[in-house]
Amino acid sequence: MGIIALLTDFGDRDGFVGMMKGAILHIAPDARIVDISHQLDSFDLKSAAFLLERTACHFPSETIFAVVVDPGVGGSRRILAAAVSEHYVVAPDNGVGGYLLAGADHKRVHSVESREFFAGSVSNTFHGRDIMAPVAAHLHRGVPLEKLGPRLDSWVTLQLPNLLKHESSVVGEIVYVDKFGNMISNISSADLPQHEDLSQLRCTVGGTEMVPLVESYAGAGGLAATVSGMGTVEVFLDRGRAADRFAKPVGTVVAVERIVK
Amino acid sequence: MGIIALLTDFGDRDGFVGMMKGAILHIAPDARIVDISHQLDSFDLKSAAFLLERTACHFPSETIFAVVVDPGVGGSRRILAAAVSEHYVVAPDNGVGGYLLAGADHKRVHSVESREFFAGSVSNTFHGRDIMAPVAAHLHRGVPLEKLGPRLDSWVTLQLPNLLKHESSVVGEIVYVDKFGNMISNISSADLPQHEDLSQLRCTVGGTEMVPLVESYAGAGGLAATVSGMGTVEVFLDRGRAADRFAKPVGTVVAVERIVK
Amino acid sequence: MGIIALLTDFGDRDGFVGMMKGAILHIAPDARIVDISHQLDSFDLKSAAFLLERTACHFPSETIFAVVVDPGVGGSRRILAAAVSEHYVVAPDNGVGGYLLAGADHKRVHSVESREFFAGSVSNTFHGRDIMAPVAAHLHRGVPLEKLGPRLDSWVTLQLPNLLKHESSVVGEIVYVDKFGNMISNISSADLPQHEDLSQLRCTVGGTEMVPLVESYAGAGGLAATVSGMGTVEVFLDRGRAADRFAKPVGTVVAVERIVK
Repeated sequence: MGIIALLTDFGDRDGFVGMMKGAILHIAPDARIVDISHQLDSFDLKSAAFLLERTACHFPSETIFAVVVDPGVGGSRRILAAAVSEHYVVAPDNGVGGYLLAGADHKRVHSVESREFFAGSVSNTFHGRDIMAPVAAHLHRGVPLEKLGPRLDSWVTLQLPNLLKHESSVVGEIVYVDKFGNMISNISSADLPQHEDLSQLRCTVGGTEMVPLVESYAGAGGLAATVSGMGTVEVFLDRGRAADRFAKPVGTVVAVERIVK
Repeated sequence: MGIIALLTDFGDRDGFVGMMKGAILHIAPDARIVDISHQLDSFDLKSAAFLLERTACHFPSETIFAVVVDPGVGGSRRILAAAVSEHYVVAPDNGVGGYLLAGADHKRVHSVESREFFAGSVSNTFHGRDIMAPVAAHLHRGVPLEKLGPRLDSWVTLQLPNLLKHESSVVGEIVYVDKFGNMISNISSADLPQHEDLSQLRCTVGGTEMVPLVESYAGAGGLAATVSGMGTVEVFLDRGRAADRFAKPVGTVVAVERIVK
Repeated sequence: MGIIALLTDFGDRDGFVGMMKGAILHIAPDARIVDISHQLDSFDLKSAAFLLERTACHFPSETIFAVVVDPGVGGSRRILAAAVSEHYVVAPDNGVGGYLLAGADHKRVHSVESREFFAGSVSNTFHGRDIMAPVAAHLHRGVPLEKLGPRLDSWVTLQLPNLLKHESSVVGEIVYVDKFGNMISNISSADLPQHEDLSQLRCTVGGTEMVPLVESYAGAGGLAATVSGMGTVEVFLDRGRAADRFAKPVGTVVAVERIVK
């Protein structure tokens, strides 16, 4: 009853995800399949890498993440299968698993090469269905990483968003905008300057706009920041859309500094 | 193998629903999770309350509904867990469960307060994942309502849409517009004036437009009304979108009267 | 643990699919339910028929497909239950299952008439929930087709898209545009003129634009064609949207001819 969690840019209209699920259940009929997202912008590696890294910790151990954002499908890019902390990841070697790998103390990364674990017929355009789904299903059945292909020492990484930590401040950037228009930064709660409560901190957005750091969305009034369910500082507008106030929200600089000693 | 059914305004892009499912399966690995909708407009309590009330009866008994439309997350609003007829509901105390509760003969409503049934770490911004999903999972495992917190005698309600019943007529309003542009009212088949067949009834939409009440969508020609799969009178346009004919479809007055004795 | 796969035009906002799943799990609590798509344009029979025919082969044998694109619900159209090669299909008799049936060597098609396998109460507007979901669930439990209603010799078909095969060329048309803007034709790999590799073939799109036939998306540069994961010739733009180059992509004529002997 282990979980295979899917994260792709396939959308939900064309049956691509359904075919992946058919391919998984063919090999692992008792896998629990959970959708993380299929609505990422086409080829948006950074958002996929961010969502994978932020959501993985909320899944049970042994969960297998199949991440298919794959603009290079059919070309020379490798496919990775990795044990990362207590989870597994199957993904193209294009950086999409990079944030999760970068943050993990324990990891074993293998190149997926053994065709015996692929679909009987492999298209050049849909490795999500023909390679990554079957490989995830075989992992679910207990095939060890070693059987999939050779272990790797290096893989493609994405440039991490800027994060500068000082004793009394931290500067990061907005990396993701959610459905509610909340602007999610890469500053995690562990990155914040030492403080007893959030009122000792001040947040500056886009270099000029100062907003309070508050405990929750409720009752904040105007623009404010909080530590969100994603585990990082998030700029929000109480019952409104913060992102609509910024022309290009992703990339906006966010700084948090201590104002009370 | 009991069912946990999810109804939220989280959308399907940001991984929020996936994280809720991860949290559920962590505690209740054999739960069957079914999505009702995650595409409600942000904070649209009335539509959520309507969909919950109308869809619940189509799920097996013992189904647990986790309803997360929660603009007040992190504030002082309570979280409810309730037994309602043969189902269970976990939802914020903001009225979102109100239509279902109002229509039920048997109900026991408790305030969710026992932190032992929450996630190990509870954010202030995502109680769907950190409280409501774990609580639903514990209910699935057999934890009784009494253990979650004290029983309540009152809770927040939403104003019910207007419904006036007379001997030979009933007046209600459009409460929901579906994907097909069908305009769904709050007049249930039980509310209709006594009749032998629908041709004895006449429907007036928006105070002026008279349309026939027919048995099904097929072959109605122009604008017409029927008793839909939601169980209420619905104004539709055969193979078209009725709602596009009205500037503000939700709230439109609908009257049904008997024209033949 | 057999699979029931759903393909509808119901969208994901209104709870229609959730109610179908509730109805299925009521009868077949251990069914595995997989979504193929619910995002087809309302009443788009051709796209549904295409997706069903192209995706079915990627599901395990004994999968039951419930296909609900049903503009004639409540009218005189029949409902079909069919064994098609190693799968089952439940769908309205409006052509939506027609491409799959046309391509199958072995099929047994029955009219669904035995009310004992319907929901207790059947609406006139939602046979997906009240007839097709329960019938699919009963098939999953082992009810034979014969019990559902009489066997049929004929059923409604959709006109198949044009496909003209010659010794050294084949002419078809674009039948579907996917989320990436890829233009998918009805020319399957088996329809292609004899060749040793794709470079011996040339593709003409819309009567005038010649594009190369390549092995995969990767590195194609401009507009090109490949044999896609759907198993047919597909016109694509490397990391772009081919369909945006055509005013009406569906219906565009595609010709493939051999240029090297």
